[in-house]
Amino acid sequence: MTEQIMEAISSEVYGVWFLIGAALVFWMQAGFTMCEAGFTRSKNSGNIIMKNLMDFCIGTVMWFICGASLMLGENILHGFSGGFSFDVFTDYGSFDYSAFVFNLVFCATTATIVSGAMAERTKFSSYCIYSAIISAIIYPIEAHWTWGGGFLAQWGFHDYAGSNCIHMVGGICALVGAWMLGPRIGKFVKDKNGKVTKVNAFPGHNLVVAALGVFILWLGWYGFNGAAATDIGTLGSIFLTTTVAPAVATVTCMIVTWVKYGKPDVAMCLNAALAGLVAITAGCDVTDCLGSAIIGLVAGILVIVGVWFTDYVVHVDDPVGAVAVHMLNGIWGTVAVGLFATKTAPGFELAGIGEGLFYGGGFEQLGKQFGGIGVTALWTVVLAAVTFGIIKKTIGLRVTEEEEIVGLDQMEHGLLSAYAGFEVVDDSFGIAYDEDEDTSQITGDVPETQAVPVMVSNTVPEGRPKMTKIEILCKERNLEKLKNALMKLGITGMTVSHVMGCGVQKGKPEYYRGVAVEASLLPKIRVDVVVCAVPVKDAIDTIKKVLYTGHIGDGKIFVYDVERVVKVRTGEENFEALQDVE
Amino acid sequence: MTEQIMEAISSEVYGVWFLIGAALVFWMQAGFTMCEAGFTRSKNSGNIIMKNLMDFCIGTVMWFICGASLMLGENILHGFSGGFSFDVFTDYGSFDYSAFVFNLVFCATTATIVSGAMAERTKFSSYCIYSAIISAIIYPIEAHWTWGGGFLAQWGFHDYAGSNCIHMVGGICALVGAWMLGPRIGKFVKDKNGKVTKVNAFPGHNLVVAALGVFILWLGWYGFNGAAATDIGTLGSIFLTTTVAPAVATVTCMIVTWVKYGKPDVAMCLNAALAGLVAITAGCDVTDCLGSAIIGLVAGILVIVGVWFTDYVVHVDDPVGAVAVHMLNGIWGTVAVGLFATKTAPGFELAGIGEGLFYGGGFEQLGKQFGGIGVTALWTVVLAAVTFGIIKKTIGLRVTEEEEIVGLDQMEHGLLSAYAGFEVVDDSFGIAYDEDEDTSQITGDVPETQAVPVMVSNTVPEGRPKMTKIEILCKERNLEKLKNALMKLGITGMTVSHVMGCGVQKGKPEYYRGVAVEASLLPKIRVDVVVCAVPVKDAIDTIKKVLYTGHIGDGKIFVYDVERVVKVRTGEENFEALQDVE
Amino acid sequence: MTEQIMEAISSEVYGVWFLIGAALVFWMQAGFTMCEAGFTRSKNSGNIIMKNLMDFCIGTVMWFICGASLMLGENILHGFSGGFSFDVFTDYGSFDYSAFVFNLVFCATTATIVSGAMAERTKFSSYCIYSAIISAIIYPIEAHWTWGGGFLAQWGFHDYAGSNCIHMVGGICALVGAWMLGPRIGKFVKDKNGKVTKVNAFPGHNLVVAALGVFILWLGWYGFNGAAATDIGTLGSIFLTTTVAPAVATVTCMIVTWVKYGKPDVAMCLNAALAGLVAITAGCDVTDCLGSAIIGLVAGILVIVGVWFTDYVVHVDDPVGAVAVHMLNGIWGTVAVGLFATKTAPGFELAGIGEGLFYGGGFEQLGKQFGGIGVTALWTVVLAAVTFGIIKKTIGLRVTEEEEIVGLDQMEHGLLSAYAGFEVVDDSFGIAYDEDEDTSQITGDVPETQAVPVMVSNTVPEGRPKMTKIEILCKERNLEKLKNALMKLGITGMTVSHVMGCGVQKGKPEYYRGVAVEASLLPKIRVDVVVCAVPVKDAIDTIKKVLYTGHIGDGKIFVYDVERVVKVRTGEENFEALQDVE
Repeated sequence: MTEQIMEAISSEVYGVWFLIGAALVFWMQAGFTMCEAGFTRSKNSGNIIMKNLMDFCIGTVMWFICGASLMLGENILHGFSGGFSFDVFTDYGSFDYSAFVFNLVFCATTATIVSGAMAERTKFSSYCIYSAIISAIIYPIEAHWTWGGGFLAQWGFHDYAGSNCIHMVGGICALVGAWMLGPRIGKFVKDKNGKVTKVNAFPGHNLVVAALGVFILWLGWYGFNGAAATDIGTLGSIFLTTTVAPAVATVTCMIVTWVKYGKPDVAMCLNAALAGLVAITAGCDVTDCLGSAIIGLVAGILVIVGVWFTDYVVHVDDPVGAVAVHMLNGIWGTVAVGLFATKTAPGFELAGIGEGLFYGGGFEQLGKQFGGIGVTALWTVVLAAVTFGIIKKTIGLRVTEEEEIVGLDQMEHGLLSAYAGFEVVDDSFGIAYDEDEDTSQITGDVPETQAVPVMVSNTVPEGRPKMTKIEILCKERNLEKLKNALMKLGITGMTVSHVMGCGVQKGKPEYYRGVAVEASLLPKIRVDVVVCAVPVKDAIDTIKKVLYTGHIGDGKIFVYDVERVVKVRTGEENFEALQDVE
Repeated sequence: MTEQIMEAISSEVYGVWFLIGAALVFWMQAGFTMCEAGFTRSKNSGNIIMKNLMDFCIGTVMWFICGASLMLGENILHGFSGGFSFDVFTDYGSFDYSAFVFNLVFCATTATIVSGAMAERTKFSSYCIYSAIISAIIYPIEAHWTWGGGFLAQWGFHDYAGSNCIHMVGGICALVGAWMLGPRIGKFVKDKNGKVTKVNAFPGHNLVVAALGVFILWLGWYGFNGAAATDIGTLGSIFLTTTVAPAVATVTCMIVTWVKYGKPDVAMCLNAALAGLVAITAGCDVTDCLGSAIIGLVAGILVIVGVWFTDYVVHVDDPVGAVAVHMLNGIWGTVAVGLFATKTAPGFELAGIGEGLFYGGGFEQLGKQFGGIGVTALWTVVLAAVTFGIIKKTIGLRVTEEEEIVGLDQMEHGLLSAYAGFEVVDDSFGIAYDEDEDTSQITGDVPETQAVPVMVSNTVPEGRPKMTKIEILCKERNLEKLKNALMKLGITGMTVSHVMGCGVQKGKPEYYRGVAVEASLLPKIRVDVVVCAVPVKDAIDTIKKVLYTGHIGDGKIFVYDVERVVKVRTGEENFEALQDVE
Repeated sequence: MTEQIMEAISSEVYGVWFLIGAALVFWMQAGFTMCEAGFTRSKNSGNIIMKNLMDFCIGTVMWFICGASLMLGENILHGFSGGFSFDVFTDYGSFDYSAFVFNLVFCATTATIVSGAMAERTKFSSYCIYSAIISAIIYPIEAHWTWGGGFLAQWGFHDYAGSNCIHMVGGICALVGAWMLGPRIGKFVKDKNGKVTKVNAFPGHNLVVAALGVFILWLGWYGFNGAAATDIGTLGSIFLTTTVAPAVATVTCMIVTWVKYGKPDVAMCLNAALAGLVAITAGCDVTDCLGSAIIGLVAGILVIVGVWFTDYVVHVDDPVGAVAVHMLNGIWGTVAVGLFATKTAPGFELAGIGEGLFYGGGFEQLGKQFGGIGVTALWTVVLAAVTFGIIKKTIGLRVTEEEEIVGLDQMEHGLLSAYAGFEVVDDSFGIAYDEDEDTSQITGDVPETQAVPVMVSNTVPEGRPKMTKIEILCKERNLEKLKNALMKLGITGMTVSHVMGCGVQKGKPEYYRGVAVEASLLPKIRVDVVVCAVPVKDAIDTIKKVLYTGHIGDGKIFVYDVERVVKVRTGEENFEALQDVE
């Protein structure tokens, strides 16, 4: 059997596998969408779907305009870039279709990583622009260096499937973007000097969907890491390392969170699986089982440290943990090639690199890895900073405060809810806002004309104290302020429920596939308090101060007589029953 | 290396790929299920799951009974049909298993397209029947014409993967079915002459799941379009065109909806991705990058126009947009072969057709495309009309009004909710029904014996006006009528909340996997209004008139004294605070 | 063309397909996760995600430590086990990577089956331990017997893809585990002698996601059954049988549930699809279309009988139906090989077994099948009983009652909800608990000091009876008791709504990815009753007795005057309006 026949077989078999791999990488778009949507609040889900759909679609357009040729074209400028061309249009007959599609889906992955870190507060138009720039310029050029025959490839830098070129690059863009954008409202509580005194968590609205996203990504990763293999030994070994690293990372994370927080953390373990996958990506072809296990072990710890670091040290708000997962583990995975590359791995020979430090190869390959990371990171930091900076100065990166509070679905897309019919509570319920904000609201001065003369109600029968129920109808966003203000008055218990206020005015029409959706019922909350010792006048004055803005929708207060109150636990009644702190 | 070896290689490689492709097309069933479920209301989700599961399962049974042989058997009747046979049972040893499975999954796709357009109001038994007929007769015969060696194949009509044979056929069945079925209650508001004066939108209950469905479909489409390829050039090119067309369609749709409705529409963009995929299906093997981009661009506009057209012109209620996506773009995609087919595409030679009009091929191929569309559409319209017509005349196509309002999950499947535990609001909340219906209810005459003598409550202390809170407990479906009636009385504000009414009577038992589920808590709404100027008697009379049906569950009214009302914005109290229109 | 070339082609083509198949089987983890999460209550979804993620990850670690070599190593002990080795670490260069990964994903499937049956009440730490033991010992050794060249393989027992080795084994572990664990609180209502008098259903919280899980599993099954095929005829036939059996099973189940329960059951049909897949797994390579249809038909009935049997006969609580789906159909599928194996199936020759009873092969193969099932079942029962027994005696298998009621997400993982922001009702709402429990609570003796002196309220104007609204704020878990107690008093109507109680005390902090989540708003219910004939004193005494535990959070009672009550249907007012049973 001739070499020629083997080549013919390989060319067909791995040619088809290459495209199946590309389809699997496309499928990762679904994984990113589900992860990002699941890890954030439901009021932004439509926007997140849209972003993840559009970055692939806009990315495709950018790709045939310029991305593909910048990455895959003939070297120009000493391997800095591929030469620009329009071959996909002018010379379709002899075009390399498979390479075009394959590299496109990888490009889209890079762009989509950024989405998660900047979720819930980025203007959609700005998102479209920077996503286009990543796909058109930032990614194609640095990917050319390593994969398009550029100067890093020539130098001996090794990144088999993209820990560096995709995940670190995406992660750096995510970090720069999230930092320039600022945190979501309520994420960090600051004191008067601007020092962060508290970090709040915004739990994801659908962990089942987020978990599905992680499984989709893991499945897709067999294509991501394996698609370029051209022999069965290498492909099998890649499947092995791509399984071992995330498994060990997840187990490690479970143990560490269990020890550290007392309970094994679900969301962090989902992130850890991705961290392990990112970390094994660069060296999946040149590491062995032991190497990939250690790479995974470090990844499982790194993701926890990374999430803590972005939250508590640099105070960058990264809703899905993209910086910890993609940037930190992208760097770690690329470095790990210089530590764990071993000639026993079946893909080692083809890679043409030196063995890693721990396998006796000394510092040579490790040095090249750091070099590759350095130039790629530098390029990305500069380009990302310039891109986001220009957008911020011109059309703005961020939505308004109102848009953020109401949700991007409604404000950016006219979508009332991605979950029509479900009762959804504002997710920032119970979150304490900035300390000074609380205070300023309560001491806010209200015009004298607002003062309320108090009428004494004299219908209380003898033998019982006058007890009064005060029912407040207002917008949900006022709850935290209202609660704090009433507690300062000594009102220690209240009941909150979700209602719909219905008035004559119709809501602003929203569109759903071109058909107007009316919302004449507006979501409100009803807060009930029963007072006895606290004068009704004081309570009403306080409520009015807190709620007053002068705009329609400030709310109403209703007052009722209460005949009796019983506290079950103690059997106390009336006045006594209302003095507790439960 | 001999030709023979190349053939042996191809036969194994593309033989396996053919089956992988079939698995990907099977996977599209999941995509259709998620899309249809996500784009409709949660009260019908179980029914939608069931329909999409059953059309594949019933379709499989029909397929081995007759579908497979009608499509794939030897030509009979001059290429009108395949010959009927039972080879799959009698001659299993030499059967073509792959072709059986591959064509089965395509057949199931055709049947499932119809499901979406007829969602939320079709009887499940009728669904099973027409789904069986599509799989047994309608699809196999027309598919034989093009793909089974029938007369359209011989004539030179080209539909590589089914814009015509699957999507247009499914879309036409969808249109005929939805039209004969009539719209969902509340979709179109008509005046007394039956003219539609308003179109309401019913937003989908889970866009995250719908988006997942779109990603699943897009992934599956690489198999749908690519499975039949037998060389790597054609397969790569198909992957390219199958990526470019939907991407351009989606970007186009985003821009158009942004301009037209002021905001980029999420649901429409999801539909646009599918529209682009449908449109590229017929010509994915014979078009180039530019051609597929233009095909996608038109598809992105066509889907918007199509949704508008079904809603506003023909007034056919198509919950998921199947007519716009599958029928219109199926036609467009099939026509597009005659416009954009080019010999530079690697699959062109094998296709054996003429170049398209825009590539210098003149009108010949275009004519054939129109011819193929014409006969296929004619066959489908006639067969669909007969099928649905017979079902409508016999067992009926549509559920009763009550079944539709309560939801098909409960009424057709005994499933209380596909989302047990979640609080879900009736999705038609806030939807105005037919104009005359509103009026008739309010002026409805109620037996004189219902008249309520009014007792004057005389416990109001001096110094304040008598204010009264009226609390109404009733079924959610009465809300809109109640709201309108109270507003006519001058009651301008009300608060609505969801509660559960609990009585002695147990609900009708429902079954979940054979175990009875009790529902002793029935969902109700509580509507609170506070009146001062409006006499309590008038309010109660009106409420009684609106709610009265004479059946158990008409509801109750409770009346309480109110001590005080404060309107926060203006500081007004009591009488004045209740006169507003907020 | 030489034999050698064909082998070279096959080796590459089916080598790659083998790994694609492994990826598809990995993907089934996502399917199991979605199914289990969807079929259970939302308060445990995070725990379910975690379990399904961890059994794969822990399983992988166990696999490289010992599982892989026990299964795949050289025969020791006369084919009882593979020899233990550390080749994956010490001899990576010549390791069989593909076999390692392929068998790992199958192993993970076995472990994950158990998860569903033991859902919603198993301690997470215990889960991790037994999951590790299944992956390390129970599965590898019995799998060695059939697939690792062990004694069953030598004997002629046939289980192509795992009806016996995976599904029956997983199903038996599930049955033993669920039996030792006991049912979920409220699943079975017992009388005083411990006899089960009623079986309650706990409907799944998300059937859309469960349906997605079924589609994922079905897709993955093409890899599960097909991955080991090495020629296109066998692979095509496997695709055919793997499609026909579940399709027929699902149709059968639909018809049977329709006839038996009056309505086609959605959840059962989803299970039936899986049952058909399990049943065809052992013989997918050696059965024909007719055989697989009959296998599916039986599976569709068997799953219904199995669910009924576990619920109503043995009273084992299996939330997802794992015993019926995997154990019963695993046995059936393995037996079916001895009934339906036919030499016309293209995989028959390679299997090297005898034809089935119904195809003229007599009882020989059938006997071997029973033999294989017998020893595998014996091994599994013993090992599972010992494993669960030791765990139960030491660290315990089950969470506390409080943990179960509150939910494992919160108690085991510190996750407030997998659906942050959604209003979710306790899923056991409306479930009657054990009969004696009800009674004991209501007759429970409360300290004399709790007695409430009743003050007569004397503000009722003449001309109307004194009517009183009693508003109870308490925890949701008390609703059923409260309802029953009030009904015994003659209070026949009540309104329940979900509210949030808000007090000074902060909730216990929970962690979400390492950041504390505060819950200062605690979910409560408000129960409103209006009484007239029933003395307020009696009502309050009863309420206090039912709610009293002496712990913080027992709730409060508020009493208001009611001016008037109207019953809409009859027009009755006040006293009369409150005497009904609606």
